Parts: sequence; structure tokens; C-alpha cells
Amino acid sequence: MSPDTERGPISLLTPEARSALDRSGYGSWRAIATADAVSLAFGFPYPESLPTARLQESTGAVLDDEGERALQYGGGAYADRLQTWVAKRETDRGIDLTDRDVLLTNGATHAIDSVCRAFLDPGDVVAVEAPTFMGSIRVFENFGVDVVGLPVDDRGLDVDAFADRLERARAAGDPTPTLVYTIPNFQNPTGTTLPEGRRVRLLELADEYDFVVLEDDAYGDLRYEGEPERPLCALDESGRVVRVGSFAKTIAPGVRLGWVVAPDPIRDAVDALAAGGTNTFTRSVVGHYCDAGHFEDAMPELRTAYADRRDAILAALATHMPDEATWTEPDGGFFVWLELGDDVDTDALLEEAIDAGVTFLPGSMFYPNDGGENALRLSFSYAEPDEIDVGIGALAAAIDAHRRG
Amino acid sequence: MSPDTERGPISLLTPEARSALDRSGYGSWRAIATADAVSLAFGFPYPESLPTARLQESTGAVLDDEGERALQYGGGAYADRLQTWVAKRETDRGIDLTDRDVLLTNGATHAIDSVCRAFLDPGDVVAVEAPTFMGSIRVFENFGVDVVGLPVDDRGLDVDAFADRLERARAAGDPTPTLVYTIPNFQNPTGTTLPEGRRVRLLELADEYDFVVLEDDAYGDLRYEGEPERPLCALDESGRVVRVGSFAKTIAPGVRLGWVVAPDPIRDAVDALAAGGTNTFTRSVVGHYCDAGHFEDAMPELRTAYADRRDAILAALATHMPDEATWTEPDGGFFVWLELGDDVDTDALLEEAIDAGVTFLPGSMFYPNDGGENALRLSFSYAEPDEIDVGIGALAAAIDAHRRG
Repeated sequence: MSPDTERGPISLLTPEARSALDRSGYGSWRAIATADAVSLAFGFPYPESLPTARLQESTGAVLDDEGERALQYGGGAYADRLQTWVAKRETDRGIDLTDRDVLLTNGATHAIDSVCRAFLDPGDVVAVEAPTFMGSIRVFENFGVDVVGLPVDDRGLDVDAFADRLERARAAGDPTPTLVYTIPNFQNPTGTTLPEGRRVRLLELADEYDFVVLEDDAYGDLRYEGEPERPLCALDESGRVVRVGSFAKTIAPGVRLGWVVAPDPIRDAVDALAAGGTNTFTRSVVGHYCDAGHFEDAMPELRTAYADRRDAILAALATHMPDEATWTEPDGGFFVWLELGDDVDTDALLEEAIDAGVTFLPGSMFYPNDGGENALRLSFSYAEPDEIDVGIGALAAAIDAHRRG
Repeated sequence: MSPDTERGPISLLTPEARSALDRSGYGSWRAIATADAVSLAFGFPYPESLPTARLQESTGAVLDDEGERALQYGGGAYADRLQTWVAKRETDRGIDLTDRDVLLTNGATHAIDSVCRAFLDPGDVVAVEAPTFMGSIRVFENFGVDVVGLPVDDRGLDVDAFADRLERARAAGDPTPTLVYTIPNFQNPTGTTLPEGRRVRLLELADEYDFVVLEDDAYGDLRYEGEPERPLCALDESGRVVRVGSFAKTIAPGVRLGWVVAPDPIRDAVDALAAGGTNTFTRSVVGHYCDAGHFEDAMPELRTAYADRRDAILAALATHMPDEATWTEPDGGFFVWLELGDDVDTDALLEEAIDAGVTFLPGSMFYPNDGGENALRLSFSYAEPDEIDVGIGALAAAIDAHRRG
């Protein structure tokens, strides 16, 4: 391709499309995915968690009961029930759906993308926790916006530091964000949870500085201890929070179903912009699955299995890691964030780790700009507890070799 | 909502999002969909065409064979096979995939939307056949572009008239299109097919005036007589055609799977911009279905059943319509376009038709601007042949009453 030619189809690509082409970056992922090593790299649910038998049963029920509606445009009763089920569950979390509504989407990324389409113009500022989920950074970058990273600590987004920054920006006449993206529960990649005080303060800032808060709650259902924090969407009194959820971690990534909760007019705008509607076949199957109680029935086992993995990784880190290493201790979710000494470059460390028999994702992947060079994300969701211990041992050996080498 | 307030979340919506909110318009559809009348309104496959038993069988096979991969991020072998299967079928149509590739999407609308994201900036011109599929008009409008309608006749897009218009635009220094959208086979809503000579001429114009041709081939598989025309994508030598396909009419709308065929760099840009990836569960099920030969096995029966419906509607039109009515005679697809006398307003006629026992879509819905006021689209895909005859009889009665009234 020759993106600089003055005519021809490549020259007709938008600036955002050309920029997306330039950010390939997924090449190295294949090496990680196919490595013969303990996988602590990806936030994949462990294989036995995927409810194959029950989804098969639900598919049978849907196709027997109303196959000709479930496969038609619009779907039938089971597709509708999923909407009802999600709405009830969001209400149970304290979210008032009087002037808000749920919109089902083709997964959480589709949900986030559709919200971005409603709010983002090129040149806008989007503020994110730094580090944050790299998939979302990519989505934001597709809109030609300026993605800026906000400081985090072991309780998530440092809201006071953000307030100072907003005040300085206002004083200097610099642009403030149109949208602030947060993963408040068991954040990806740090595993931290934003306490209620910070949530309330963030909403005050949203009001004061006129921005939208995009709450990505992909992991909120997977709490292994302690009491749940109230969603930002439940605390929101001014209609500034747009909330995104997903079945990827609680049923299966492959069903690719998520949702948006937003004030009615925003929900309608997102709906008008989210091209093409949902997959009524899968939506019907998942509607049956949830309606039959399988979702709730599966949660205790999921939580126990993930808690065992979380315990295993924390124990292994305590056993194997060098003194100067620090890591987060999540109450839920899939991830631990590990910071190593300043002499470690985790991009370079990855190759040695693969050779030693373990994979992870380097910290730099989770920053919109620079950052995270001596940090890395460990996902404890996929490997077995005893594999995790082996993997962390291998990681310690790789760190040791990296420093000597 | 108060879209004119100067702050608050509604004020943060993009201009395109606000404009999308203003174009509601789907309200009247519910009245059509729920009417107790013969449905000639929507392009729905007839219920018995939906392969419930075989999709159930394929779901069982996928979940038994590789459930833990089909439900995981990325999918497994069956998901991959669908890509291979589509690529082979496109190659069989004469499309050279040496420097092109197939990208699976969450349905054709998602495909069209993703292509638009790659090429359209606000203010660009998109040229469409007038009339054309209203769902695509909506997608284009979401990008803040100027959608202009091009004249059509009984052989589809009038390419010579388009050439004249392009020449005049160039002479006047007016903008020419960035993208031209065409449904070359059994067009929605006219049922017409673009002959090869016009296809070649359109590609010459694309080269001369530097635009992309978006070929939407939703109906190409459903030809009931005559020889297939070669796809624009097969005739394209300069990499200007982006082709879109779908399983909505040949398997089921509810599986929501489509694809894009595009030159490699364009395919990569579309992939980077199409948020979220495909539904690996459904993709695996459809991959098994196609790989097992069910797609090809189903086609003869589908074509026969649709041809019977096409014959029924043409016979009924000949029997019941007033002298001044004219209509298209499609060789495939789902639609007949009916033009009535200038004294008939089909928007107003619809209510009387529903009372008389039949539904259709008024012609004005298929124009980006004005047009089609005395025309309407009849879909023969859903109703049984004998119902179709009853429906066209009812339509004739409604037309008669409309003129008297």
C-alpha cells in the first residue's frame, strides 16, 4: 500500500482509518498466544467455566419453542427476555431505570464504540486511567481524539489529582475531557476498585467540568470478598454516566453480548448509531439461559474457582518475587498488576519469560502514551492454580536472568 | 430532552448523533409489523426457510467438538472454516483474492457501516441509487455526509446519466462522490439487475472520478432464472470495489453474519475500525453448517420457493392492478417496485391498505431526499403464494378506494 498517493482508494481513507492502519501492534500477540508456556497474558475465562452443556440445552429450547422467530429479524420472546433480565439485574444494583434504559449490543467493545460515536468529535479529549484496558484505548484512538492518561493508585483513579489537573487546565484555557473512561471494579489491568467517596467526587467533577463518565463494569460480578461498591450509574443524579456491561466473563466471550445503560435520549442516540442490531439467535439462547436461572446458578462456582486462582497467584508472588517487586491484591476480577525495579524493561522481559515458560502482557501496552515500562499485567483467570505457581516461578527466574543479562 | 442546552450530557452529543436522534421515523413500522394483514412490507425470509433443525444440529456438533474454543475469544476451527468457506465461494464467483481478502462482520449493516468509517468524513458526498435500501441511507446519514440519489431504470443504475452528472459537477467545480453505493443484483427496492456493460462503465467512472464503489450483494444467490452477472468486485482491476455479503437471506437474519471483500489494506483498515470482532459462537455454528454442505443443499428449495412467490405476485399484479400501474419483473431477490398514477400518494395509501388487509412500504422511504411518492415496494419473500394473491387483490381495492376518496 502507498498511503501517500494523491488518488486511488487508499488516498480516500479517512485520517482515522490511516492512523488505525499504522497502529498494527497485534503482531506480537500471536507469539504470546501460541507460546508453549503458562498463560498469564490474556483475560480469558478458564475453559471449564464455559457453559457448553447449558448453552446447548438453551439452544435446543429456543429453536424448539420459537426457532422461526429467534432466527428472524427482530427475534422473539427469548430475545426480549434478555433485555428484561439485564434491566432487572441493573435495577437490583441500585440503578434507577425510570429515565434510563438498557440497550443490548454485540459485546462490550461494540457498546463502548457506539457510545464514542455519540459523543466524540476529532480533537476531543478522552481521559482514561493510566494504565487501562488497551482495547478501549484503541477504540478511542479510532475517533481521532487525544487520549490522556490519569494517575491511579491502589484504590483506582486518583480523583484528587485529576481535580487538580482539571483546575489547572481550566485556568490555562486548555481543553478538558469530553469523556472520562473508568473501569471502577477490579480494573483492567490493575485489579483495583474505586471506593464510593472517589466515585461521588468523580461525578461532582463531571458536573463541574461538563464531561460524560463511561463506566465499564466488565468485572463487577466477579467479587471474591468484601461488599460491592455502588455503580457510578447508581450514584449519578445528573444523567452523566453511561454504563457498559458484558457477558464475556460471566457466560462466555464467544456469545459477544453486552449492553449500555444510559439516560433515555443518550440511549436512543447510541441505538441510532450502533449499526445493525444484535444477533437475535445468540441473544435468544442467552435470554433462555439467563431466564432459566443458569446465570445465577453458575456464579458461586465461578467466584470460587477465580478466588482460588487469585489466592494462588498472590501466594506464588509472595514466594517467588524479588524484594523490590510490588503488586496489587484484587478483591475480584482477573488481574494483578506487578511493578518491578526500574532496571527491568518488561517489553524485553517478555521474550525471556516465554523461554522460561510463562507469558504476560507488558505494562506499556496499557498506557495511551508512555508508561508502564517496568510493570506488567498478570491474568490469573485462565491457568489452573498449580500452573499459576509454576508460571510465577518461571517469571521470577526470567526476571533474575534479565537483570544478570 | 433539551438538545439546545449549552451544557450537560445531551449538549455533548456529536452533531451526527443529534441528527440521528431527530430522524426517528421507525414509529410507523410498528403499525405495519403488527397489522392483521398480508405482509408484503418487509424483506423477511418466509418462516419455513429458516433452518432451525440444521442449526440445532450444527450447534450440537460445535459444542460437542470444540465448545471451549467456540465460546472463547477468537473461536476455534469451525469459526475459521467459515472464513475459508466464504473466501472459496467468492473466488468461485470470479473474484481474485490474491490482493484482496474477506473480513467477517456482524451482519451486512455492520459491514457497510465499517466501510463507511474507513472512507467517510463529514461533508463528503455519497451517491446511491434512488430508490435504494433505507437502512443503508440511515447508515450513511450517521456520518454527516451528503447523500445524493442517482437515477435508475429497469436495468438498475443509469450509468450514462451518472456520467453526465459527474462531468457537470467537475466542470462546475462541485464535489464528486467519495463513495458510490450500489445493489447490483435484484436491487432493494426495485428488483432490477445491473448488466455487465453498465458495471464496467461504472468502474471506469470510479477510476476517472476517484471514488470507491460499495457493492452490496445481499440477494445475488437468489436468482430464479437467467445467468448470473459477474460481481463488480470480479470486474474491478484498480482495487476500488469494496463488496459486502450476508447470510441474512440465505441462512437466517438472526445469525447476523456478513462479510466484506476488499483490497488488503482497505480490509485491514475496516478491520481496525470495526469494533469488537464477530460472535464466535454463531460464527462457529454457521461455519459447521456451511462446511457440512447445508448451505448449498438448501439453495434449490429456497430458489424454488421464492420463484413461486415471485410468479404469484407478478400474476396477481397482472390480474388486479389498474391499467396505469407499472411494475418491475425481477429475476431474483425479494422485491417488486410498483409505480401508480400521479394521483396516488402511497404514504396515505398505506393506512387504507392496512384496513383492506395488506401492508407494503411507501416509495418515499427509499429515497435519500424527495421521490417515490406514487411508488411502493412489495416484498414477496414472506407471504405464501396464495396469500400474496389475496394481498395484491386487497391492494387493488385500496388503490381504488384511495382514488375515489
